[in-house]
Amino acid sequence: MEKFLSFTPQYTCLEDVLIDHNLARLGDAYVNFIYSIALSKREDKATGAKVSSRVLAQALKRAKLRGFLPKRMDRHTMGDAAEALVAYAYLHEAISIEESVGALLSANNATEAFANLLCQARERLSFNPTASESTL
Amino acid sequence: MEKFLSFTPQYTCLEDVLIDHNLARLGDAYVNFIYSIALSKREDKATGAKVSSRVLAQALKRAKLRGFLPKRMDRHTMGDAAEALVAYAYLHEAISIEESVGALLSANNATEAFANLLCQARERLSFNPTASESTL
Repeated sequence: MEKFLSFTPQYTCLEDVLIDHNLARLGDAYVNFIYSIALSKREDKATGAKVSSRVLAQALKRAKLRGFLPKRMDRHTMGDAAEALVAYAYLHEAISIEESVGALLSANNATEAFANLLCQARERLSFNPTASESTL
Repeated sequence: MEKFLSFTPQYTCLEDVLIDHNLARLGDAYVNFIYSIALSKREDKATGAKVSSRVLAQALKRAKLRGFLPKRMDRHTMGDAAEALVAYAYLHEAISIEESVGALLSANNATEAFANLLCQARERLSFNPTASESTL
């Protein structure tokens, strides 16, 4: 698996993950895939859906990650940050596809679902404590 | 894994898979995800991209699957058929994410890449021979 995902970047700070636009691009595809699997399981038939920036931005706030980002970011950029973190956790094998789907299914709505996933991703990754963290 | 993907439909004919719009919805998310992983590996950095209906429709023809579909289908519907087959193969564990990515990386362009993947998916699934197949 390490060889399979050999392009995985390495960061020591959560902030650096959240602003990586390359990770966000891959995360967009990952997030839509796991959401589609989760919906398929819930509806008991194959289906697909895209996750909106609005949902991801709200989930980021609910997971208490907004404070790790610069001020004055729009909804789309906050959505990108959520996608970047989820992709990073997947690439580092901190969370599998099955676990990601499980986290999404543990909630009653999409915002709560992605907040759960973001919390789980962050918990399983080891980041250095930062200045912004100490003030949260 | 069987429990994880418990919503997987069962078909005996390839034609039935290709026209399943629910599978195509999930397949859209799957195809974009594996394509994004393959691109990330090729470029050696995380990235993402969406696969166009044009590429998928051309790949379907190159994989000699066009004859299994009704006449007079537009490019978008042919793309859906390709997505449905790839999703079906994944759900039935006939091809893994790693193998899908490997099939995509074995080609020089996106059309050839998805044609390889479609051929591999079809070969690994056991379908009954049909009237249309005997004339191909």
